[in-house]
Amino acid sequence: MISKSELTFLKSLRLTKNRKSEKKFLIEGENIVSEALKMDFIIIKVFFTKKFNNQNDKMINLLKNKYTSVEVSQKQMKTISTTKSPSGIAALCNLPKHDTNTKLNSPWLYLDQVSDPGNLGTLLRSACWFGINQIALSKKSVDPYNPKVVRSGMGAHFYLSIQIETDVDFFDKDKFIILGGDINGNESFDLKKLKKNWVLVLGNEAHGISDNIKEKIDEKISIKKLGAGDSLNVSTSGSILMYLLTKNQ
Amino acid sequence: MISKSELTFLKSLRLTKNRKSEKKFLIEGENIVSEALKMDFIIIKVFFTKKFNNQNDKMINLLKNKYTSVEVSQKQMKTISTTKSPSGIAALCNLPKHDTNTKLNSPWLYLDQVSDPGNLGTLLRSACWFGINQIALSKKSVDPYNPKVVRSGMGAHFYLSIQIETDVDFFDKDKFIILGGDINGNESFDLKKLKKNWVLVLGNEAHGISDNIKEKIDEKISIKKLGAGDSLNVSTSGSILMYLLTKNQ
Repeated sequence: MISKSELTFLKSLRLTKNRKSEKKFLIEGENIVSEALKMDFIIIKVFFTKKFNNQNDKMINLLKNKYTSVEVSQKQMKTISTTKSPSGIAALCNLPKHDTNTKLNSPWLYLDQVSDPGNLGTLLRSACWFGINQIALSKKSVDPYNPKVVRSGMGAHFYLSIQIETDVDFFDKDKFIILGGDINGNESFDLKKLKKNWVLVLGNEAHGISDNIKEKIDEKISIKKLGAGDSLNVSTSGSILMYLLTKNQ
Repeated sequence: MISKSELTFLKSLRLTKNRKSEKKFLIEGENIVSEALKMDFIIIKVFFTKKFNNQNDKMINLLKNKYTSVEVSQKQMKTISTTKSPSGIAALCNLPKHDTNTKLNSPWLYLDQVSDPGNLGTLLRSACWFGINQIALSKKSVDPYNPKVVRSGMGAHFYLSIQIETDVDFFDKDKFIILGGDINGNESFDLKKLKKNWVLVLGNEAHGISDNIKEKIDEKISIKKLGAGDSLNVSTSGSILMYLLTKNQ
């Protein structure tokens, strides 16, 4: 059973300000809930439809053993969900707490006003894959707990430390090498120049890296164009750069 | 001036079947129209708002010199457009004609039931960037001239030869090496094995490459996981593989 007020509350978490004030967010779909299930202290409560239960009884039993899990109607799931065709499972989660110290000896991804939720989610998924676990977002970036970001992140959120509203000065230039993905950058960056502490900065989809942040960048790096086009998608170019920067680890 | 019936016609091009029967599609936005403008025989007619004209008079004059170009109201542009906030420019285009011969001595990208429009568009954009100009799509793939695919393709469509409903047998196994992006593939594929004629096969977002197509693959290739996650996004992994396969060209 789920009350009307709880439904209203869950729906309210679509807005960034409510997620921030409540320190909670909602996840949806079998894959993402499965990833969250592997972690402690993430899931607060689970909501599932009868149909999903029938098709995934093992998963639901596992969830029931660990968390308060309630069956909801298809209609109620539609109210909770932000997708047109809800998968039948959702979970209320705690927003992870992240310490705001500069972790050294680990690579960072710094996103400067990346605004498309799908791009941010895909970048988080790639960062997670390549073991870049420290993420910092500038002001005016899309909220990382936006439902679309969470969906395209495919569970990456639970593995990463994600700081928001972070100034690039957070990274001490004496300790870090600051690299920036830039269309006019070096196409054959020498990986030997990489320090243990590096940051990859990626900019906004339309405008690239902000001018004030560009000043702080030690080396602009890029991916050679062999064919045609104005640019690559930021999540594509960012992922290729992450691949290159981590491949000799 | 634009008539009601023309508006209805333009709106009808949102559907695949109408694009196919009319052999026309619609493009939107400054960047994509600019790319189309560089090509001959693509644009048939241009539609712009007064506001867009005021802000981009040089571009509109260029378009007016080459094509029938008509001013439409904001409301009419909203009817034509498939985006929430139309940019103020759209163009009716001819669907490109593609010959259906197997072009040799050039790399191919074969997409097996890629279903997300954003993923397909991003893959086309990356293929174009890396000079992989021959694209073949299996049956049940999303239509490459779907407005969302066109939007995320960012003009790539005009540089590529895109064949639809293509069987993988199209590629003669004696002439081509068929590579498949696969989570269990070889993480350090030896580029020396690459023939002049190669095909990179990428599969559906949820199910990967179909079983009947897997049988035809000479070598499965993959991108090493250094951190966590179930998989990379198909447009991300596909783009990294395209980068790797073309970088020594």
